Parts: sequence; structure tokens; C-alpha cells
Amino acid sequence: MASTAFAARFNQSVTKDALRSYLAEFISTFFYVFAVVGSSMASRKLSPDVAANPSSLVIAAIANVFALSSTIYIAVNISGGHVNPAVTFAKVVSGHITVPTALFYWVSQMLASVMASLLLRITTVGQHIPAYTIAQEMTGFGASLLEGVLTFALVYTVYAAGDRLGATGSLAIGMMAGANVLATGPFSGGSMNPACAFGSAVIAGSFKNQAVYWVGPLLGAAAAGLVYDNLVFPAQVHQDSVRGDSGGVGV
Amino acid sequence: MASTAFAARFNQSVTKDALRSYLAEFISTFFYVFAVVGSSMASRKLSPDVAANPSSLVIAAIANVFALSSTIYIAVNISGGHVNPAVTFAKVVSGHITVPTALFYWVSQMLASVMASLLLRITTVGQHIPAYTIAQEMTGFGASLLEGVLTFALVYTVYAAGDRLGATGSLAIGMMAGANVLATGPFSGGSMNPACAFGSAVIAGSFKNQAVYWVGPLLGAAAAGLVYDNLVFPAQVHQDSVRGDSGGVGV
Amino acid sequence: MASTAFAARFNQSVTKDALRSYLAEFISTFFYVFAVVGSSMASRKLSPDVAANPSSLVIAAIANVFALSSTIYIAVNISGGHVNPAVTFAKVVSGHITVPTALFYWVSQMLASVMASLLLRITTVGQHIPAYTIAQEMTGFGASLLEGVLTFALVYTVYAAGDRLGATGSLAIGMMAGANVLATGPFSGGSMNPACAFGSAVIAGSFKNQAVYWVGPLLGAAAAGLVYDNLVFPAQVHQDSVRGDSGGVGV
Amino acid sequence: MASTAFAARFNQSVTKDALRSYLAEFISTFFYVFAVVGSSMASRKLSPDVAANPSSLVIAAIANVFALSSTIYIAVNISGGHVNPAVTFAKVVSGHITVPTALFYWVSQMLASVMASLLLRITTVGQHIPAYTIAQEMTGFGASLLEGVLTFALVYTVYAAGDRLGATGSLAIGMMAGANVLATGPFSGGSMNPACAFGSAVIAGSFKNQAVYWVGPLLGAAAAGLVYDNLVFPAQVHQDSVRGDSGGVGV
Repeated sequence: MASTAFAARFNQSVTKDALRSYLAEFISTFFYVFAVVGSSMASRKLSPDVAANPSSLVIAAIANVFALSSTIYIAVNISGGHVNPAVTFAKVVSGHITVPTALFYWVSQMLASVMASLLLRITTVGQHIPAYTIAQEMTGFGASLLEGVLTFALVYTVYAAGDRLGATGSLAIGMMAGANVLATGPFSGGSMNPACAFGSAVIAGSFKNQAVYWVGPLLGAAAAGLVYDNLVFPAQVHQDSVRGDSGGVGV
Repeated sequence: MASTAFAARFNQSVTKDALRSYLAEFISTFFYVFAVVGSSMASRKLSPDVAANPSSLVIAAIANVFALSSTIYIAVNISGGHVNPAVTFAKVVSGHITVPTALFYWVSQMLASVMASLLLRITTVGQHIPAYTIAQEMTGFGASLLEGVLTFALVYTVYAAGDRLGATGSLAIGMMAGANVLATGPFSGGSMNPACAFGSAVIAGSFKNQAVYWVGPLLGAAAAGLVYDNLVFPAQVHQDSVRGDSGGVGV
Repeated sequence: MASTAFAARFNQSVTKDALRSYLAEFISTFFYVFAVVGSSMASRKLSPDVAANPSSLVIAAIANVFALSSTIYIAVNISGGHVNPAVTFAKVVSGHITVPTALFYWVSQMLASVMASLLLRITTVGQHIPAYTIAQEMTGFGASLLEGVLTFALVYTVYAAGDRLGATGSLAIGMMAGANVLATGPFSGGSMNPACAFGSAVIAGSFKNQAVYWVGPLLGAAAAGLVYDNLVFPAQVHQDSVRGDSGGVGV
Repeated sequence: MASTAFAARFNQSVTKDALRSYLAEFISTFFYVFAVVGSSMASRKLSPDVAANPSSLVIAAIANVFALSSTIYIAVNISGGHVNPAVTFAKVVSGHITVPTALFYWVSQMLASVMASLLLRITTVGQHIPAYTIAQEMTGFGASLLEGVLTFALVYTVYAAGDRLGATGSLAIGMMAGANVLATGPFSGGSMNPACAFGSAVIAGSFKNQAVYWVGPLLGAAAAGLVYDNLVFPAQVHQDSVRGDSGGVGV
């Protein structure tokens, strides 16, 4: 990759259409994190010993389904509806978007997550912002493996949805996230989204186990993209790029 | 805006098609408010100390998803499926409908909300009608800011759904409302709908904090419409008006 | 209506296609009642004092959403997906199907409901079959009014879905039913379906308040059909009958 | 069926497209079982006396809706989205796929289920893997009958969805599974899927009542396929095979 090619790609990353994409990612990630972190705070306010209440698991799961489905839906025609740095990472690894574009996506997602957590902190007047934690008996490796497997499922669903993303895919992705939270909520938390884990950790001021929510998800996401594009559905991908995320930015 | 133009627009607002729109808004808002206020009463009947029960948050959230998705769905081909004065306000501000039409929409929505609350009061024989309240430690400004942000998300989703409203958009909007309720239920209540807050307050006889459910939502809604039409998706909006809400009434 | 015309219509009601419709109604109503009555029994088994548990309301509501959406979905291309004698009644009143056809639909629906309740009674070994009841403080008139209003909403949604029934309408109808249950579960039960109330009452051996679940729903359903066809969406109905339920049987 | 014909069919079962199908079934069944078994473990961790908590029934039901809808969705264009040996069995009985193909599907599904249960066992560090059990007062015959009826409903929905499977059918199937779990969770468990029952039993080391989760579901599934293809919707099936599951493998 020559440096002029990189410069050309960088210029593609700051066009008007590209800026609209970053704004769309910011808005969608903001509201996704707002719902996921906010619903966890709401659970805690209603029932302090929330860790022992199965209803809190229902709340976490449906928050993921509702928030992820709707935030992907509103961004899909603008930015492709990543709403998750792990999805963006997979798209880079499997060659759907360029590195500069991905970096701008990441910055938008991280910023949105921090801002959403900050808004919750300010408006709820001193409520504790919950950071993701892993169950006491689990190892960091086990939790990271679990988060990696969950993110594999999530990103695999994104790839499988392909150009059905705007119609029915966003719901399928949201439901996959919800199913994963139901399965792992009390174990690793079921984050599958480094931006969400990062933003809440920044405002909570606790980066304990943060690596768990980055290493596993990024590796799982990359693996999902590669498996889908090369093993499960190899033919059509490079022939016609009908995916929503090629709209505006990227190769 | 000349007064003859206004008169012409007013006449457009009382055609047969326009009257059908107001009826559709009345019916949809009636059943939306019926479900949201009724489910809160049902929670309270089952468990008096409902404020400390996470299941009540699940009930409030899914009542929003189920009721908003279905009531938008049934009105979309007739009135555009606003079901919310904040949506109507945003449509006026961003120039999609005229002021006289919006006023008739508002009257239909307000009347529907009062009637739904009244029906619940009468049939359940003296059950208390719950008005929206904010958490004790929160400020009115914080709650209004929160409601404004929530309504931004809701109305942004309405705009992003655009002409997909009838097929998949109504579900996405309902899910966004549900996600918002999960995040803010125990804090500001997650109303996002001045009609709903107004109707329940009229029958409950308590207008405490009522401003919170008007100022934030109206400003948030207007902002969402302007941001979407001008920044996120500027091109197509004024070229071809393919939105469902232009059916029958409006410019 | 001459008697020969009636005979001709009766003959239309026993063709091969018509018989397939009755079978489809039987299967769908069977599984709808199975889920609604069974979920109520499951709630009761898990927590005997289920009347004081908000989770039981969540269970009743999502049982309606899941079961009604899916059972309408599987019947829509065969019988139009009524799954409810009140829907069938509305279709007769507004002239979409003939009286003989409606009678066969009713018999299929009633039989299915009794059989589903019987299967639950037998397999669960002596578990109590719950019949619908109204809250102690409510009047029979109030409960009937409430059930009538709920059924109006449900049947209105069926009419509004029209020919979108198979794609997205079945979900909208299921969600409307779920929203209604959330609003009225602890008051009138939120039946909206005379077949469901009848079948469970037959096996439970208690017909107390049974009239509540017939008078209100049938009147509400007929009103919804008439309002929709004559006021809300008058034009297209008699021009082109594109509705799913005209497939096979009916005018 | 001559042995050369069988050999030809066997060769069809190991083509590149066929192998992709088995991989898709493996991935989808893995994540379905992961969510269903994992969510049951999560319930148990949050509230040890989970059998007496109605929230656990909500968790089991929505885990089925979310996981089954999304895993069918991601496999439908590759393998037809069976995700269940009972569905595969019905497809063989009604002549949609060949016996060798079905055997490969079964092996993929069983292997996936065992692996998913194993992953949960390892990462959660010694949490108990729950095997399906039947209520104490029930007979094995009653439970098997119940599971058979549930699986009839599920497979009937698969057949009714037909070529709408990728768009809206996967959600309808997931909702039917969820409705069934709500109705029978505390009685027979609502498995409807021999692979899921088998995998969790292997890792739990308990095959008590395993026959219940095989005999009923396989018979119910075969009956559903035959009823749908021969009675409910006989015409179109053999004329044009537009079903998604004929993609790649099968007759």
C-alpha cells in the first residue's frame, strides 16, 4: 500500500458523505450506550441487590435487542450501521472499508460512548455508572474467550444480514445480542462492544478487566468476518458489493 | 406567510382526507396512552411497592414497544402515524406539514389521551391514575434535558424510517421508545410524549413537573428533525417527498 | 338474501379450499389457546400467589404477542388468519365473508380452544385450568366495556394491516394484543377472544362472567370493522378486495 | 431406492456447497444451544431457587425467541436454517431432502450442541449444566406427547413460512418456540429440539427422560410436515420448490 494511495484514501475519509457517516455512527452509538448503561443503572436503582434478581437479566437483554436493532436501523443507510468498534474492525480485516475510515468510525464510537455515560452521570445526580465486570470465579482468559465467542456470533449475523440489513437484519442482529446477554449476563456481562465497555469505564473511573472487553471481541469479530466471507459465503462478496456499509465511504 | 395562503392551508386542513387523518391520530393516540397508563396501573395493582420492582420496568418498556409500534402501524397510511405531539411539532418546524394541520393533530392527540385516561379511571373503579414524576434527587432541568435527549432519539428514528415507516419503521420506533424507557424509567419516567403526560395529569389532577414533559420533548423533537433533514440526510428530503405523512394533509 | 343464494353460499363453504381454511383456523386457534392458557398455568405453578407478581403480567403479555403473531402468520395464506371468533364476526358484519363460512370458522375455533385446554389438563396431570375472571371491585358492565374497547383495537389493527397481514401485519396485531394485556391483565384479564374464554371455561367448568368475554368483544369487533371500512379507509375496500382472507372462501 | 442412486445422493452430500451447509448448521445450532442452555444457567446463578421464579420463565422464552429467530436468519440462505434435528427429520419424511444429507445435518447439529454445552461448562468454571427434566407429577408419556405437540407447532410454522423464511418467517418461528416455552416451561421444559436436549445431557452426564425429547419431537415434526404438505397446502409444494432449504443440497 503506497503512501499516495493512503493519502487518497484519507481524503476519501473526510468528504461530506464521510462526515455524515461519522455523525450517524456517533448518534447511533450514543443511544445504544445510553440504553445499555442506563438500563443497568435503572435496574440498580429499583433493586440494589440486582445481581440476585433474574428480572435484571431480562432488562439487560431487552435493552440490547431494542437499542441495537433501532440504532442499527437508523444508521444503516448513512454509515452502514456498525455501532460497534468490533464490527468496524472486522470490516477492515475483511477488506470492506479502509483503515483511515475505520479510525474515524472508532473515534466517533468512543466519543459517543463517553458522552452517553457522562450524560447519565450528570442527569441522574450521582448515580453510580456501572462498568462491566466478570463473575468472581471466572478467569480473565475464560471471560475474554466468552466475549470473543459472543462477538463472533454478533458479527457473523451482521455479515449474514448483508444487504437485508435495513429491512430485517437489524432486528436479527439485535436479537442475537439479546440472546447472548441472556446466556452470559451474570458471567462476563455480555458486552460484545469495546466502545460500550470503554465509555462506561471512563466515567466510572475503573478499567479493571478492560482488556477482556477488547481482546476477545476484536479477535472474535475478525474471525467472524473472515469465516463468513471465505468459508460460508465466498462467491458473491467480491463480485458485487451490495452491502449497505459501502455507501459513502470505503473502498 | 400571507393570510390568504394561511386560509388556503386551513381549508386544506378540513377536507375529508384531513378529517380521516385526525380520526386516525385520535384512535392511535388513544390506544397508545391506554396501554402506557394502563400498564402502569396494572403494575401498581399487582405489586403496590412497584417502584422497587424491576419487573415494573420491563412492563413499562414492553408496553411502549408493543403499543407504539402497533399504533404507528395502523395510522401510517392515513395520518402518517405521529401518535405524539412532539413528532407533529418536529414536522412543522422542518416544514413537512402546515401549522393548521399540526394544530388539529395536537387537539386530536390531547383529546385522545384524556379520554383514554378517563376510560381507565372509570372502568377500573377508583384505581389511581399515575402521572409522570421525576426521581426525588433529580432537578427539573436535568429531567427535562433527559426527556429532550430521549425524544431526540425517538423523532430521529421517525425521520430515519422515512418511507419504510409502514413496513419495518414502526417496529424500530417502538423499540427505540422501549430502550429509552429501560434507561430512564426510574429517573424521569421516559415519557417522550407530551400528550401522554398531559392526559394522565388531567385525570390524576396533578400537573407537578408537567413542564418537564413539554419543554424537553418539544425542543428535542425539533432538533432531531432539523439535524436529520439538514446534516444527516440533506439531499433527498426536498426533492421527492416520499414520506407517509404527506398522504392527505400538509404541503 | 334468497334461500337459493344461501344454499349456493353454503356449498361454497364446504369446498376443498374451504375445508383447508377450517383446518388452518383449527390449528392456529389450538396453538394460540394452548400458549395463552398454558402460560397462565405455568405462571401459577412457579408462583402460586401469581396475582401479586408483576412477572406474571409480563408472561401473559408476551404469550399473546408470540402466540398470536405466529398463529396468524401460519394461517394467513390459507384462511386469512382470524384465530378469533370476534374477528370472524367483524368480517361478516362488514361483508367480507358469508354467514355459513363464519359459522364453520366459529365451530373450528371453539373446538380448537376446548381441545387445547383439554390437552393441557390431561398432560399436566390435574393442574387447574384457569378461566378468565374480573377484578373483585369491577362491575360486569365495566369489564365488558373494557374488553370491548380492547377488541376494537385488535380488530382495527387486523383491518389496518389489510394485505400487509402476512409480512408485517401479524406482528403488529400480536403487539396490539400484548399491549392490551399489559394494560388490563389484573382488571378484566385482556381476553379479546371469545373462543379462548370459552374453551378454558368449558374445561375449568366455570362459566362465571362468561358473558363479559362475548358481549364486549363481539360488539367492539363489529364496531372496529365498520369504523375502518366506512370512516377511516372507505375508498379502496369495495373496489379491490386484496385482503388475504378472501382466499378460498367467502364472497 | 437403488444403491447407485444412493451413492449419487451421497456424492451430492459432500460437494463444496453441501459442506458450507453443514458448517452453517453447526454455527447456528451452536449459538442456539449456547443461548438456551446458557440462559438457563444464568437464571440459576442469579436465583438458585429458579424453579419458583416466574422471571426464569420469561428468560427461557425470550432466549428461544431471540436465539432461534436470529440463528435461523443467518443460516437460511446457506443451509435452509433447520437448526433442529426434528426439522431435518420432517424434511426427509416429506421428501424435501435426502437421507445422506439429513445424516450430515444431524451430525453437525449434535456436535454443535455438545460443543456449546462444553464451552459453557469450561468458561463458567464448574457451573452445573442443566439437562431438561419433566415435572415430578407428569408421566413420561404425557411429557413426550406435550413435546410432540409443541414440535408439531414449530415445524408447521417452518413449513408455513416456506420461502418467506428469510424475511419474516424466522421471527414467526422464534415466536412460536417462545410461546410454547411459556406454556410448558415448568412442565416438560419446552425443548422441541433433540439436539439441544442431547448436548446438554452429554455434558451434564444425565440421560434421564432423554427419550421424551426424541420420540415426541420427531413424531410431531414428521406429522407437521405431512399435514402441511398434504392437507393444508397440497398444490404448490411439488410443482415449484421455492423453499430456501433446497439451496445447495438435497433433491
